[in-house]
Amino acid sequence: MIFYDCTTAPSPRRVRIFLAEKGITVPTEQVDLANAQNYTEEFRALNPLGTVPVLKLDDGTCIGDIMGICRYFEITNPNPPLMGVDAKDAAIIEMWNRRAEQEGMLNIRDAFRNRSKALVDKAIPGVAEPVPQIPELVERGQQGLLRFFRMMDKQLRGKEFVTGERYTVADITTLVAVDFSRAAKVSVPEECTDLLRWHKAVAARPSAQA
Amino acid sequence: MIFYDCTTAPSPRRVRIFLAEKGITVPTEQVDLANAQNYTEEFRALNPLGTVPVLKLDDGTCIGDIMGICRYFEITNPNPPLMGVDAKDAAIIEMWNRRAEQEGMLNIRDAFRNRSKALVDKAIPGVAEPVPQIPELVERGQQGLLRFFRMMDKQLRGKEFVTGERYTVADITTLVAVDFSRAAKVSVPEECTDLLRWHKAVAARPSAQA
Repeated sequence: MIFYDCTTAPSPRRVRIFLAEKGITVPTEQVDLANAQNYTEEFRALNPLGTVPVLKLDDGTCIGDIMGICRYFEITNPNPPLMGVDAKDAAIIEMWNRRAEQEGMLNIRDAFRNRSKALVDKAIPGVAEPVPQIPELVERGQQGLLRFFRMMDKQLRGKEFVTGERYTVADITTLVAVDFSRAAKVSVPEECTDLLRWHKAVAARPSAQA
Repeated sequence: MIFYDCTTAPSPRRVRIFLAEKGITVPTEQVDLANAQNYTEEFRALNPLGTVPVLKLDDGTCIGDIMGICRYFEITNPNPPLMGVDAKDAAIIEMWNRRAEQEGMLNIRDAFRNRSKALVDKAIPGVAEPVPQIPELVERGQQGLLRFFRMMDKQLRGKEFVTGERYTVADITTLVAVDFSRAAKVSVPEECTDLLRWHKAVAARPSAQA
C-alpha cells in the first residue's frame, strides 16, 4: 500500500497521528501541493476531489478520505482502539470527531482559504475550476472557531480526553484544529483553561510530532 | 430512548431512512424548529449545537449527531449492514458517505440558508447569535452541488448502488442530498443518467418514505 501525504497539510496529519498512536508504518509518497501535483490527471485518478490524504491499497483501491483511511486501520489494527469499544462509546466518539471537523477544521478552512493571497480563486481545496474567495467567510469562520473552542472547553471540564478517560480520534481532530487555528488567525481564548490544559497534554504525546 | 426528530428537516431524515432499512422503531419526539424550540435551554442541554437529530439513551447520554446515531444502531442492530462488512468495505462506504455530506449536503446548506428570506441572520443552523447571510455562497454552493452530481454520476456508472452491490448509508446520504437539492434551486443535470437511474431505484424503496 501507499499513503499519499503532504507533511505541511493538516488533513494528512490527522492520519499520521492516528497511525503513530497505532504504531503502524506505511510506505509514504509526498504529494507536491505547492506545485499543483494534486491537479494532475494522475492524482485525480486516485482521488477525484484532488485532495490529500489518499491510501492506495495493494489491489489498487483508493481511499481518498481522512476518516475512511482511519476506519480502515481501526479494523485491521484494532489496538489501541481509537474509534470506540462499544456502541455508545463509538457513537460519542463519532459525534465529537465530527464536531471537531465541522465546527473546527471547516471553519479554519473558511477563514484561511478566503483570505490567503496565495489562494486567490482556490477557495476550496482541489477544485479544478476557479473558486473565488469570499472575504465575509473569514470573519464567519473565525466566529465559528471561537464557538468551537468554547464548546470544547466546556466538554473537557473534568475530563482527561475529549470523550472521557481514553485518547481517541476525536482528540486527534481537535488537536489538529487547535494547532492549525493559527492559519485562521484565531487563538484559543485564555479563559478556556480546560481546553488549554488538555492541549498541552495531547501535544506532548510522541504522536503529535507526526 | 427518545429520538428527537423534525419530519420536515433533511438531517433527521437520514436517520429515519437508516432506521427503516434496519427495521428499528424508536419512540420519537418532534422538535418544533419553526418555533425555535432548538434555541431553548432545554434543547441545548441535549445538543449544544442546537440541531436535530438527537438520540437520548436510557442512561441520559445524548448523541446529537446524524452519523453518531447511525453508528450506534449499526453496532446494536448489525443486520442488514449499512456501514460495511470488512475494513475495505467500511472505508469505502465512509468515504462516499462523507463526500455525499460534504460535497452534497453542505453545499445545499450554503445555497439554501444564505438565500432564504426566512433565514436572515440564521445562515448556520442552531447558532444562537446572529449569523448574517453571505449571498455569494448561494452560487458557490450551487456550483459545488453540480460538481457533486457529476462525480456521483461517474461513480454510479455500472453500479447498482453508490459503493457497489449493496445498499449502504452512502446511498441514504446521497438520496437525501438529491431530494433536498430543490432547496438549493439545483436539479440533477439530464446528462447524469446513471445518477438519475440510481435515484429512481432508491427513491422507490419503502425506506425513502421515512
